[in-house]
Amino acid sequence: MKILCLNGPNLNRLGKREKEAYGTFTLDELEADLMEFSQGNGINLMCMQSNHEGELIDWIHLAADDGTEGIVLNAGAFTHTSVAIRDAIASIQVPVIEVHISNVYKREEFRHHSHIAPVAAGQITGFGQDVYKLALHALLFKQARG
Amino acid sequence: MKILCLNGPNLNRLGKREKEAYGTFTLDELEADLMEFSQGNGINLMCMQSNHEGELIDWIHLAADDGTEGIVLNAGAFTHTSVAIRDAIASIQVPVIEVHISNVYKREEFRHHSHIAPVAAGQITGFGQDVYKLALHALLFKQARG
Amino acid sequence: MKILCLNGPNLNRLGKREKEAYGTFTLDELEADLMEFSQGNGINLMCMQSNHEGELIDWIHLAADDGTEGIVLNAGAFTHTSVAIRDAIASIQVPVIEVHISNVYKREEFRHHSHIAPVAAGQITGFGQDVYKLALHALLFKQARG
Amino acid sequence: MKILCLNGPNLNRLGKREKEAYGTFTLDELEADLMEFSQGNGINLMCMQSNHEGELIDWIHLAADDGTEGIVLNAGAFTHTSVAIRDAIASIQVPVIEVHISNVYKREEFRHHSHIAPVAAGQITGFGQDVYKLALHALLFKQARG
Amino acid sequence: MKILCLNGPNLNRLGKREKEAYGTFTLDELEADLMEFSQGNGINLMCMQSNHEGELIDWIHLAADDGTEGIVLNAGAFTHTSVAIRDAIASIQVPVIEVHISNVYKREEFRHHSHIAPVAAGQITGFGQDVYKLALHALLFKQARG
Amino acid sequence: MKILCLNGPNLNRLGKREKEAYGTFTLDELEADLMEFSQGNGINLMCMQSNHEGELIDWIHLAADDGTEGIVLNAGAFTHTSVAIRDAIASIQVPVIEVHISNVYKREEFRHHSHIAPVAAGQITGFGQDVYKLALHALLFKQARG
Amino acid sequence: MKILCLNGPNLNRLGKREKEAYGTFTLDELEADLMEFSQGNGINLMCMQSNHEGELIDWIHLAADDGTEGIVLNAGAFTHTSVAIRDAIASIQVPVIEVHISNVYKREEFRHHSHIAPVAAGQITGFGQDVYKLALHALLFKQARG
Amino acid sequence: MKILCLNGPNLNRLGKREKEAYGTFTLDELEADLMEFSQGNGINLMCMQSNHEGELIDWIHLAADDGTEGIVLNAGAFTHTSVAIRDAIASIQVPVIEVHISNVYKREEFRHHSHIAPVAAGQITGFGQDVYKLALHALLFKQARG
Amino acid sequence: MKILCLNGPNLNRLGKREKEAYGTFTLDELEADLMEFSQGNGINLMCMQSNHEGELIDWIHLAADDGTEGIVLNAGAFTHTSVAIRDAIASIQVPVIEVHISNVYKREEFRHHSHIAPVAAGQITGFGQDVYKLALHALLFKQARG
Amino acid sequence: MKILCLNGPNLNRLGKREKEAYGTFTLDELEADLMEFSQGNGINLMCMQSNHEGELIDWIHLAADDGTEGIVLNAGAFTHTSVAIRDAIASIQVPVIEVHISNVYKREEFRHHSHIAPVAAGQITGFGQDVYKLALHALLFKQARG
Amino acid sequence: MKILCLNGPNLNRLGKREKEAYGTFTLDELEADLMEFSQGNGINLMCMQSNHEGELIDWIHLAADDGTEGIVLNAGAFTHTSVAIRDAIASIQVPVIEVHISNVYKREEFRHHSHIAPVAAGQITGFGQDVYKLALHALLFKQARG
Amino acid sequence: MKILCLNGPNLNRLGKREKEAYGTFTLDELEADLMEFSQGNGINLMCMQSNHEGELIDWIHLAADDGTEGIVLNAGAFTHTSVAIRDAIASIQVPVIEVHISNVYKREEFRHHSHIAPVAAGQITGFGQDVYKLALHALLFKQARG
Repeated sequence: MKILCLNGPNLNRLGKREKEAYGTFTLDELEADLMEFSQGNGINLMCMQSNHEGELIDWIHLAADDGTEGIVLNAGAFTHTSVAIRDAIASIQVPVIEVHISNVYKREEFRHHSHIAPVAAGQITGFGQDVYKLALHALLFKQARG
Repeated sequence: MKILCLNGPNLNRLGKREKEAYGTFTLDELEADLMEFSQGNGINLMCMQSNHEGELIDWIHLAADDGTEGIVLNAGAFTHTSVAIRDAIASIQVPVIEVHISNVYKREEFRHHSHIAPVAAGQITGFGQDVYKLALHALLFKQARG
Repeated sequence: MKILCLNGPNLNRLGKREKEAYGTFTLDELEADLMEFSQGNGINLMCMQSNHEGELIDWIHLAADDGTEGIVLNAGAFTHTSVAIRDAIASIQVPVIEVHISNVYKREEFRHHSHIAPVAAGQITGFGQDVYKLALHALLFKQARG
Repeated sequence: MKILCLNGPNLNRLGKREKEAYGTFTLDELEADLMEFSQGNGINLMCMQSNHEGELIDWIHLAADDGTEGIVLNAGAFTHTSVAIRDAIASIQVPVIEVHISNVYKREEFRHHSHIAPVAAGQITGFGQDVYKLALHALLFKQARG
Repeated sequence: MKILCLNGPNLNRLGKREKEAYGTFTLDELEADLMEFSQGNGINLMCMQSNHEGELIDWIHLAADDGTEGIVLNAGAFTHTSVAIRDAIASIQVPVIEVHISNVYKREEFRHHSHIAPVAAGQITGFGQDVYKLALHALLFKQARG
Repeated sequence: MKILCLNGPNLNRLGKREKEAYGTFTLDELEADLMEFSQGNGINLMCMQSNHEGELIDWIHLAADDGTEGIVLNAGAFTHTSVAIRDAIASIQVPVIEVHISNVYKREEFRHHSHIAPVAAGQITGFGQDVYKLALHALLFKQARG
Repeated sequence: MKILCLNGPNLNRLGKREKEAYGTFTLDELEADLMEFSQGNGINLMCMQSNHEGELIDWIHLAADDGTEGIVLNAGAFTHTSVAIRDAIASIQVPVIEVHISNVYKREEFRHHSHIAPVAAGQITGFGQDVYKLALHALLFKQARG
Repeated sequence: MKILCLNGPNLNRLGKREKEAYGTFTLDELEADLMEFSQGNGINLMCMQSNHEGELIDWIHLAADDGTEGIVLNAGAFTHTSVAIRDAIASIQVPVIEVHISNVYKREEFRHHSHIAPVAAGQITGFGQDVYKLALHALLFKQARG
Repeated sequence: MKILCLNGPNLNRLGKREKEAYGTFTLDELEADLMEFSQGNGINLMCMQSNHEGELIDWIHLAADDGTEGIVLNAGAFTHTSVAIRDAIASIQVPVIEVHISNVYKREEFRHHSHIAPVAAGQITGFGQDVYKLALHALLFKQARG
Repeated sequence: MKILCLNGPNLNRLGKREKEAYGTFTLDELEADLMEFSQGNGINLMCMQSNHEGELIDWIHLAADDGTEGIVLNAGAFTHTSVAIRDAIASIQVPVIEVHISNVYKREEFRHHSHIAPVAAGQITGFGQDVYKLALHALLFKQARG
Repeated sequence: MKILCLNGPNLNRLGKREKEAYGTFTLDELEADLMEFSQGNGINLMCMQSNHEGELIDWIHLAADDGTEGIVLNAGAFTHTSVAIRDAIASIQVPVIEVHISNVYKREEFRHHSHIAPVAAGQITGFGQDVYKLALHALLFKQARG
Repeated sequence: MKILCLNGPNLNRLGKREKEAYGTFTLDELEADLMEFSQGNGINLMCMQSNHEGELIDWIHLAADDGTEGIVLNAGAFTHTSVAIRDAIASIQVPVIEVHISNVYKREEFRHHSHIAPVAAGQITGFGQDVYKLALHALLFKQARG
């Protein structure tokens, strides 16, 4: 099962920024952890990160054409502002799972609205770095269900 | 690990109501499926359902005192209207995971707001009946992390 | 034709409360009047009242399974606050007619919105106790139309 | 009992427009049906239709002075925009019953507000062409009550 | 000085409707009173009333071309809903004085907003039938000032 | 003087929940304290608590008929969501005093609005457990005034 | 191709009103220009203007039955206030193209909303008198496409 | 007839500030003009100005007790912000006429709302310095009417 | 115990204004009553009233430095408009109890919001003149509790 | 006449995404079609597409300096979110025509607002791929008018 | 260069109130510091503080006539509530620089809006006591630029 | 002291665009001016500009790791739309000073809100190109204070 894990703006600073909110693990450690999990579960995982909205859109488009079967997307701040990413997701058949490390509903009002949620397959929020692994589980469940 | 799975109003009609939104499985089938999963993963699971807000609050209070280590809560329509359930969750130490079978963000505007989310440990939305099993996974991850 | 007449919170105090708004008839008198009308029009009428949101939901669920062909519902204050009753109505096939004794549009702003109206077959508002009989007429018309 | 049945803008196109919403009966058929019902129930019915707000107001004023004892009003789109019709109704003693063929609460947000409702005797919504006959019933009930 | 006094919807029912709000004088009496005042003050007054928005607009257009030097306008309910009358006023050079018999700011919220005020020369509100005479005074003052 | 002290949802957890907000006294201790105060001031006090909206409404109705002369009501979260409790209060003659242990105006926005306040005799907020005793004082003052 | 060009309130004053916003051409000149263009492009054009909402609705209804294949509509101020014109358009099969001479999005906030746009085939805004000719082009394109 | 003319904040700078909006006359000239008019019309006029909300309230209170029969009030910016002046007006029997030199409805949104209007006898807006004299006329009319 | 009782704008007109809302007692009578109560309960009470926001702020500042142990504040209309009084209260250590004679929640919408409540120790509303004495009780309770 | 046709995010997926909304033509086909039209009408057309907001801004800046005489811009989702593109357009003299393939006013609420419209020369919406050609027509008209 | 430094309500309590927000320096120390800076930079500085809105307005008026060349204004809470101070600033030619010691955008929502900003020369916010000195720099820059 | 001066979208067009709003200096001139000032004040200044949100975020991240001690940021239009830049600032320790050349509070409503302000050290607005130099002063003051 080919899966793309896409991280948006500022997630390259995991482990360096607001540690009480995001934990102490770095993006490298997170991706290594997911890679290990993927190998054990028959997942062919690719991990990408960008602070550029346009690059994220480009990668979502690419996934539509290269056989990717699922996208785990933490769009960071773009979740709340990017209609363009929403439209990119709506323009492809690949299911996208929206994840957030922190519980966004405990934070500022403007983080409670997601442009992405209405076009995502589902949303997993607030379990720290576990949200990525739970998203992979969700895709495995989906595949198992056929 | 002792876990309470709590379903709110109208979830007793799963499989009988709007099947395109909620699927064809019944509440009995769902609970049986979760029981089986729990036995295989060292979880002592109790399942309850009620259409009465007060009963859900009573059960949440009980869980605070009987050694329950996690609550998987699908509060149904009360998600959007019940400050009392929110306060019940805030009054206990047990982590509560909010789940929704359908992707509420694709539905009516009034279903986009959750009174429960800000006091929940996390939220899992839109993967059909899998949300319950993903919530159990999340609690197992949490336990494993210590 | 089997019909359920369901009255919600505080309607047990008809005739005792704000008489200028609700008239001087009691709930007993109202139900007796409807019973008499029903017998003369081939309607098998059952009347229930509760101040508990959960009980109203339970009765709506029951009606879905016991051959009831129509529900006349005055949900009182729950009209404006209960998404759970809305979902209960949406989960059944039986047509529900929403009635209000007073003209709610002459009253406080918060009484102008009904959670129930979008899932009801129709709404009859503001004719005093006649709204119940008009609702029965509406169900008879519907039956006649086939 | 002298009653005026007043239809507002676009109702002359009943049976020609959005049939799934308004049914297949034409305005002529509807009025003929109401005439027949009226004759059998001692009602002297006059039916009028106009796409002009000013004409509707003129007719409402006329009804105030010619012995009309009730008005059944489907103001169509003017329901949501005309303060002038509201004021016309408020300026007369004749009771006005507001009717809508479709369930306006299932439709666009802007159709949920009625300028007329607060000054109407009552409102009947969503039972198809039956709303007119139910309104006549409501006026007969009112007359019977004295 | 040639002046047009224009009354909008429902003002033909002055003295017949809500007397506590609008007083007991009729439109005929009001116009006779203004005619008398005009003759004594060198004003050539024409009085018109209509319940039709389109007619009011037509008359405003006419006034632009027939030497009218001022319009006293009580647009009634159209004050709050008619952008078309607003645009008619904006399209002419003749100064328009907006008047209201009752104090609209003591009444329903929706009567607090005037589409006309931003394009009127000024507004006089709440002095009963005196508002018309005060408007004539205002036009005389304006003329005297040159 | 017969008085009912009614506590709503989650107040059975006083002393167990958020102690910094609600203090360390339990509901039992609070009620015992009020009982002692009542005996010394000629008050016949009855104390009830429920997490069920319907039960609170039932008790308010009962108080209307059993000679109760005042109700001290902490409706907890229902304060902000229950129109039904508001209507129950409006349907009885017995004065109801709304109390809140914490200063709700220092907390979340949604706690600033009370459905109950407009139909209550008065409101006492933010003095910890003293609010109950102050409410009893208020009822004694009222009785003394006659 | 039979096309109706319909102009709403105050457009009879083109060339006389706010010239900086609407240009110096009159309605007569505009219509003559469109007639000439139509003859050269196989269009049978009829031009109408009214300040009366009801007349515009009547004409839209007529167009539904007389073989008209497209309507170019500048509803003027009614664009922002008339649900009735919206409903008239929704009730016919003939495509309606909404045009505005000025760029309404540069003007007052209340001109940014159009009741007509959601039921129009398309909208052309802000190119001065060219919007009418562009609308005819759009209908020709549509016809060519079949 | 004893009348108080009360000017609020910044009106002492008339003729010195934004002349295109307020004209070139100074407060002294305005008051002299009003004094002259008053002497010719049997009015005993007192003129006051203050930039202090409290002083304006004190003077309104004084007017309630010293036989003043009318107040002409230009509350300036306090019109839009002072509930205290509103309450002062509501606490006295003397009629208060609200005036504004400029047409406030042509200016910023926040100037469109008046705290004073709902408790004033009437409002005169937008005729430059004439608004004061029109207000005196309105009081004379009122007195003449008895 | 040294306490300051501070009354804001228009409260000097108690007993003279809207008696149905505020009762017939004057400010002098109220203060005398409070003085008597204070002497019997070991309170050293000072009473002040002003219509000037600045004076109220000055007195609040003074209380911070002269050993005052509590302030009973009826800020009248400033409750709803004065951020400056709010900041004055926030800048001192002395507890401030907000009182209102009438039930502000039964009155106009704009009286439902208090700038002061979030920085006050508590709020007592709607018991007529008793609110002052209840506030003194609250301060005594607080002192007793230590 | 040198013209730039600029397409924003996701428009590279034309013909691949939601075909019922956007049609089956691809971006390549669209651009080829426009090129052909341009050659026949004396237009020197350049076509660009990017998913990167910054690139679109860079190209708009370039057009200001390279003799481009008109820009046809379909900014896609950036229409609703990008103040930066708005400012780029405002910073240049070249006229920009905003186009949308689908009728955005029939779609989600958030697509009804355009940041670009107030600074564009005009807007053409809802005619499918014809909007681009209509925009070229509009620029030709403009050029012809001089 | 003659400059007025004006401090509004509660700023006399600097160093005594919320020290974490405003620092530990007192108003006296602040003013002494500014005086010293002014002497070294050719500024003739006058410092004033008041809790009275009217006094601040009076001083702003005075500055317009006594040769003051710049005002540094910290209006404190009046920033958010005083249209009168806004109008005072708008009525003079002297440039006013708005300063805030704390970063108001990090605080309560109601502190994010300034009535003063649109009429100020500029705004400096959030640098602690340095904002005053930065404002003096800004005036010096402005003078140097001529 | 190492400082980064970061300019956002469209600021490369300074001196070319809306000169009345932004002045006639170009970005090159501005940066040269700041370089000169920096050399004279012991500042090691780096100047960057981009129209790409992602590049601005990348540079902010870089500054966190390369010893930069302050950032002067004019984010242009991104100020109002970019939560991602806000989060980038929140993720670093380096103080960021937000500057705007024009007084944004005098401009469109949507420019009054800044996503950046709550996480910035402070904000300087409206002094033309001086805002950059004032920001450098603010950083020097901060350094001096230690």
